[in-house]
Formats: sequence, structure tokens, C-alpha cells
Amino acid sequence: MVLIGYGNVGFHIADAFRENDAIELLQIYSRSLNTSIDNTIGVPATSSLKELLEADVYILAVPDKAVVKVSNELPFKNRLVVHTSGSVAMDALDSKNYKGVWYPLQTFSKSKKISFSNIPVCVEAERTEDTILLERLGKLVSTSVQKITSQERASLHLAAVFANNFSNHMYEVAQQIVSKKGVDFSLLRPLIEETAKKINTLLPSEAQTGPAARNDTQTIEKHLAALDNEDHKKLYTFITESIQKKLIP
Amino acid sequence: MVLIGYGNVGFHIADAFRENDAIELLQIYSRSLNTSIDNTIGVPATSSLKELLEADVYILAVPDKAVVKVSNELPFKNRLVVHTSGSVAMDALDSKNYKGVWYPLQTFSKSKKISFSNIPVCVEAERTEDTILLERLGKLVSTSVQKITSQERASLHLAAVFANNFSNHMYEVAQQIVSKKGVDFSLLRPLIEETAKKINTLLPSEAQTGPAARNDTQTIEKHLAALDNEDHKKLYTFITESIQKKLIP
Repeated sequence: MVLIGYGNVGFHIADAFRENDAIELLQIYSRSLNTSIDNTIGVPATSSLKELLEADVYILAVPDKAVVKVSNELPFKNRLVVHTSGSVAMDALDSKNYKGVWYPLQTFSKSKKISFSNIPVCVEAERTEDTILLERLGKLVSTSVQKITSQERASLHLAAVFANNFSNHMYEVAQQIVSKKGVDFSLLRPLIEETAKKINTLLPSEAQTGPAARNDTQTIEKHLAALDNEDHKKLYTFITESIQKKLIP
Repeated sequence: MVLIGYGNVGFHIADAFRENDAIELLQIYSRSLNTSIDNTIGVPATSSLKELLEADVYILAVPDKAVVKVSNELPFKNRLVVHTSGSVAMDALDSKNYKGVWYPLQTFSKSKKISFSNIPVCVEAERTEDTILLERLGKLVSTSVQKITSQERASLHLAAVFANNFSNHMYEVAQQIVSKKGVDFSLLRPLIEETAKKINTLLPSEAQTGPAARNDTQTIEKHLAALDNEDHKKLYTFITESIQKKLIP
């Protein structure tokens, strides 16, 4: 196994693979290589695609925009090359190699240690034998491995923008609202954690509460009057309407 | 201590108080009393305000809309009466008794057991000695007790709508997007949990990632084209713009 790319995703994949004796991580490619990679994770590293070793699978953990370019530039053919992106179709990979996808559905940042074992790994491949290999590789690091088509993966990636980026933006607006009154944002942290935990046992539609869900117009008006940021006001109005639309059959 | 109201909030307060030997929960009032309350939690119960026992503090855990009415109807005066609502000012309580607020900042549902110990309890009272009593009561069940004015509490409650109700709505839209493609929503659960956990160590503004934050117009356009629900499209556009506004100084 050779890992191409050592950004947020590559970093955590390397971390999970390195901890597993059944996985042989032969080499890491990074465009912006510095010797610290080699020293830190104890795997040979290179910054030249020409120096890539022979392997049963090449995992591209590069930015979405770079998938096409890097897969074009690989100096070999008829090998298994997979990308790790939620938003890129499998077909975007160059046809000179066998195509596949190995998509860990999670948000990664280098500064935060994460356990790979409960991250859903969504796999796809052109050839059946490659699907089996990618599933096996998934099961070595995660308890949740799924065969997913490019179309299904696109819907997961779009949904993830709502579930991750957009819910984080709601936290950010909350932060701005309390900061303006000099109130410590950390008071909201237990609420945020519980909100997320709730949907481990309930569907979001079942977990919805608050003034919008119970059509408490008095509180809604009080909130709108208290918001002095036009952007926050528009968000409040629009999301409240969206919640209420869901409730009308 | 007498607890007035046995809905979601009252249920969990009773649970936390009952487990603590230092707190004497004398009685629970519930309008819709049935004998199961008495049997389940081992505390005398009543459905008549006239039968309320004498106590050092009466905690109203009734719906926001009922705070004024119930506090008016209390058949005694010059005792400490506090409500537990985020959105109701302390002054809404009837002036015949001493006023206070004991607000546990969390989302409660009866079906889900919750640990009270990390729930921020925000207290406010007219009289200094009552503030001290409410703080002491808070510290018996929680590690996080704060003195908060009615105005600060209003901003926390408004922020909580974004952090809780609105982020839950983002989960719900995500659920609708993947369900339409027959993809299992539970694949998104680890992502949602990690998104919330991230802000225990990072501020939301630091944790933001995704196509909006990196101004990836290609992915944004792809997502908008994939959304066939007009409401979802509007949400996507509007929240993306709001994220991008934050990034422009």
C-alpha cells in the first residue's frame, strides 16, 4: 500500500494503517515533503511521483481538485488506484489504471486525534476483486465498511455539508450571539454535545424541539427582535420556516 | 424544596435531586398527576396548588407560557419561587413571592437519561441570600454553576436555538437527502458526533471547513445542481453565503 498525499485525510489514514500490523504501508508521497514525515511516522517518504514503489493499491489522499491531475501523472498503468474523496466520481480517475474509491466519511484535522474504528468507510471499484481488497482494507481499520456507488457517495457528501459544515455554522452564530453580551460560549458546549448524541438513538425529525417546532410565535418574535445582525435575522427566519414546513404534512 | 411541574425538565430535575442525599425534595406538583409519579420516584405528589407544602424554595418547571399564570396562582407569599426557563425574564414571576431563576442549560427528553453533573446551571435572584441558596443547590448537582442576568440568559436561550434546534434541522435535511437515494442515515452519525466534539477544543470559527469555507465554487455548484428540493437549495445558498460573509473581514 502506498499513500499519496499527507494532508488532513492522509495524516489520519497513515496513522490508522501504521497502527495495524496486517497493513503494509510501503511509502508516503507528499508534494511538500519534509524530512519530518519520514522521521515522525517511520515510513519511507518521497516528493517525486517517479519514485513511487510498486504496490497492490495506491491511495490518493489529495485535495478534490488535484485527483484528476495526480492520477494522470502517475508513471505506471494497470495497477489499482483509488481516491478518498466524497465529492469526486470514481470515473474522474485516469483510465490507465484500475479505478476505485476508499472514502472515510469523517471530518479530519491534524490537530485532533481520532479513532478510525467507527468511521464509515465507503468503497467502490471497477473490478470485483478490487472491491473485495478495498473492503478487506476497510475492515482492518473500521467496524463500518459499505459498498457505495459514486451517486450514493455524492448524496452522502452533500448531506455531510449540512450535517457538518452547516451545523458548525449554527454553533458559530451562537458563539457570536453570546459573545456580544459578554457571555461565555463554553456554557453552550454540553448542549451542543447532547444535541449530536441524541440522534444516535433518535432520528433528527424525532429529536426536533424549540420555538419553531412548537410554533411558539411569541418566542420567535422575541428572538427576532433581539437579533441585531441582519444576516442572523434572515437565518433565523428562514430556518424556522424550513422547520415548520417539515411539520405540515 | 418543592418541584412544580413534571414535564421534560421537571422529570430530570427530580431525577437529579432524588439521587442527592443533601437535597430534600418534599413534594412534586403536576397538573396531570397520576399515581405513577408517586410510585415511581418515591416523593409525595399533588395536583392541587392548594396542597403545596411549606418549603425554602419552589422550583417552577412548567412550560414558558405557564410561568406567569402558575406563579400568580400560588396560594402563599414571601417565599422563594424560581422558574427554570431560558426565555422568561425573572420579573415575569408574581411579586408576592421572592423571585429567582434556576435555569439548567440543556435539551431534555424523558426518554433519554442524562447526567446532570456537566449541565451549566444559570442562577439569578432578587435577594443576595437567595442567589447563594440557588448557587448551593446548583453545586449539589452540577459542576458548572453561573450567576447570569435575565438579559444574558435571553442571549443564551437565543443562541441555544441556533446551537440545538437549528443544527438539529441541518441533521434532518441531511437525513432527507440521503434517504431519497436509499442511503442509510446512520453513516452520518459519527460525523455529526465528531462535529460537535470538535468544538470542545476549538471555537466554531476555527473548526469551519467545507466548500463554503474554502470558496470551492465548483463543488458548491455541483451541490446546488444535485438538490431538487427548493427549500434545501435556498438553505444551502443562504448558509453558504453566511459562512463566506464571516470570512471577509
